Amino acid sequence: MLIVQKYGGTSVGDLERIKNVAKRVAQTKDAGNDVVVVVSAMSGETNKLIDYAHYFSKSPSKKEMDLLLSSGERVTSALLSIALNEMGYPAVAMTGREAGILTDSSHTMARIANIDTKPISNALSEGKIIVVAGFQGISSDGRVTTLGRGGSDLSAVAIAGALKADVCEIYTDVDGVYTTDPRIEPNASKMDRISYDEMLELASLGAKVLQNRSVELAKKLNLNLVVRSSFNENEGTLITKEENMEEVLVSGVALDKNQARVDLRGVVDRPGIASEIFKALSNEHVNVDMIVQTISKDGETSLDFTVAQSELGSVKKIMGAFSENIREIEYNDEIVKVSIVGVGMKNHSGIAATAFETLANENINIQMISTSEIKISMIIDKKYGELAVRSLHSAYNL
Amino acid sequence: MLIVQKYGGTSVGDLERIKNVAKRVAQTKDAGNDVVVVVSAMSGETNKLIDYAHYFSKSPSKKEMDLLLSSGERVTSALLSIALNEMGYPAVAMTGREAGILTDSSHTMARIANIDTKPISNALSEGKIIVVAGFQGISSDGRVTTLGRGGSDLSAVAIAGALKADVCEIYTDVDGVYTTDPRIEPNASKMDRISYDEMLELASLGAKVLQNRSVELAKKLNLNLVVRSSFNENEGTLITKEENMEEVLVSGVALDKNQARVDLRGVVDRPGIASEIFKALSNEHVNVDMIVQTISKDGETSLDFTVAQSELGSVKKIMGAFSENIREIEYNDEIVKVSIVGVGMKNHSGIAATAFETLANENINIQMISTSEIKISMIIDKKYGELAVRSLHSAYNL
Repeated sequence: MLIVQKYGGTSVGDLERIKNVAKRVAQTKDAGNDVVVVVSAMSGETNKLIDYAHYFSKSPSKKEMDLLLSSGERVTSALLSIALNEMGYPAVAMTGREAGILTDSSHTMARIANIDTKPISNALSEGKIIVVAGFQGISSDGRVTTLGRGGSDLSAVAIAGALKADVCEIYTDVDGVYTTDPRIEPNASKMDRISYDEMLELASLGAKVLQNRSVELAKKLNLNLVVRSSFNENEGTLITKEENMEEVLVSGVALDKNQARVDLRGVVDRPGIASEIFKALSNEHVNVDMIVQTISKDGETSLDFTVAQSELGSVKKIMGAFSENIREIEYNDEIVKVSIVGVGMKNHSGIAATAFETLANENINIQMISTSEIKISMIIDKKYGELAVRSLHSAYNL
Repeated sequence: MLIVQKYGGTSVGDLERIKNVAKRVAQTKDAGNDVVVVVSAMSGETNKLIDYAHYFSKSPSKKEMDLLLSSGERVTSALLSIALNEMGYPAVAMTGREAGILTDSSHTMARIANIDTKPISNALSEGKIIVVAGFQGISSDGRVTTLGRGGSDLSAVAIAGALKADVCEIYTDVDGVYTTDPRIEPNASKMDRISYDEMLELASLGAKVLQNRSVELAKKLNLNLVVRSSFNENEGTLITKEENMEEVLVSGVALDKNQARVDLRGVVDRPGIASEIFKALSNEHVNVDMIVQTISKDGETSLDFTVAQSELGSVKKIMGAFSENIREIEYNDEIVKVSIVGVGMKNHSGIAATAFETLANENINIQMISTSEIKISMIIDKKYGELAVRSLHSAYNL
């Protein structure tokens, strides 16, 4: 098999851990596999470098930031390769450039345009283990670029896709993807499998094991992803195609505490006013999540929506321009979003009813509801968040 | 003027110091100059990375070491460029690769083969300050290489030569080149000027302000070098062509404590035995410094030579092979080498006599003497080293 393994910052957090990673890579090689390893910077390094840059400037040049931030992964890749060679496993470290990772020129948030697989393939055919510095590539004009937060996952998935690897293993400090946050519900269990789409919903709901861009790319490439811990031998969670899955109605429950609710009451009755409001928000890069519009008995229109709490300041500023068109605005960050996710929902009715009933039994009022094919999200009072997660987790027998 | 400035590890040792360097560079630009800056890694960084590598391996792969060690200078160059841009001085950071520094493939000890000046020249013509990561280049097969210890000086000199810069300023933590070590002789004074050859002799004698390779290259390129402190506004020392100098008989006194003496007594009287001995040393990469051969009244041949103290172990091993050809071997590391250096010696007699007389007056026995056109070196008892330096410094009115 050809296996791409990615080790995150905590997995290579100190020299002892890097040595452990080397042993794990060596075992994979000993089992008869070809191995390409992608590494992050040692944990804390990237933040240290960002702090350094901010000592000089609040908005440092992005080209310079990429030169700065790409150095951490280079260090880890060189060290891991040194460790492997010392153990008798011929290895070669490659920068993003040397690994043929070509990106666009969007410094600090570059997208991978193409991977020239020759350098890696040639080294593999010589029997070598390849250790690639994650998170980085080069633009067409030859400058170093970085791929944004979580970019090393993206490097690993893209390399695995380009090499047509059998699997891409993402090593981190948790055992895999859980049915819900184990700190909230001790009965949360690790899933063996989950579909790309479910993972995408869970990630966007705050279960931050994998960045969405990596899961999206894996889905596009139809690449089997495994999330597992570098600190034990547990199996991890396979993220794969839906058709490979046994049908589980609901696979997970997620809690997002980073939400705020904005209620616009008495919005003036004029065509296009809603679009004006959301366009103004979009112009200021405010991401609106859930939207509910209601018309009361006396004909007054209300518009409720949720944004990330950190956006609330921007929203207040933007809403100033609409003061003549809205009777009253209420801001509320004492709310959370609870979501259930599962591909089984598509073909089964009654999933939503169970959710609503479960919360009702706990006397939890649902303020807003939004549904997709494989997800139901509900806005509730912040203080009921953990209770809601536990009740739903139990209601669906997770 | 086109000025190349190089800032060493202590000059960029922390963020505050990097800010000070930015101010100094800005002043140079404000004075109407074009400026190319070459930076070292922040002090301690390179040693930290070497320690990391040695945690895994006693002899790490040199290619991997170059990838590892080149990261420190990249960080400093990005940070300095960010600082300059923030101050309103358009700047661009360049890696060795981006600055067009092509080397041979001798990883960790690469030699600069060629500099493609286009990238720097183009950026200069746009009015930018260029900040180059020192110590590094790329080989013809595109891998990162490093230039060995002191390599950032070499980067600066080579870039200055390729750009035909008016001067190359080497900023460090001392004010310049002194007539002798001020810690030994408080009356030591900073020289305003010194010739390349004198500087080469002083450097090889242990006055480690500049690595010899950089001075040799500056001499070859006929480039004016200035050594000065980044912590004050003092003028520094100009290292330049001999003909530019006023004639000073003796310009400096140097003390080298890192010497050991090997005395071979009763060497068998056979043609070629000396060449056999020195060939055996050379085969094991032992650098022999001074050599004296004497024949005693009773016809016995003695061969005395000096090596670096760290080589003494190797020498003892090698000498084992000659046990049948040598009556007695004595090793002595309780010695030092005192040297006086000056271009004036060439045309003046009596310089050596003054040195011998000065030491005789202090009852210091001279064990070995070696002379070149511009240097006289003497091996004496270690305990007299500082006294000899002070006496000679005073004897030549330095």
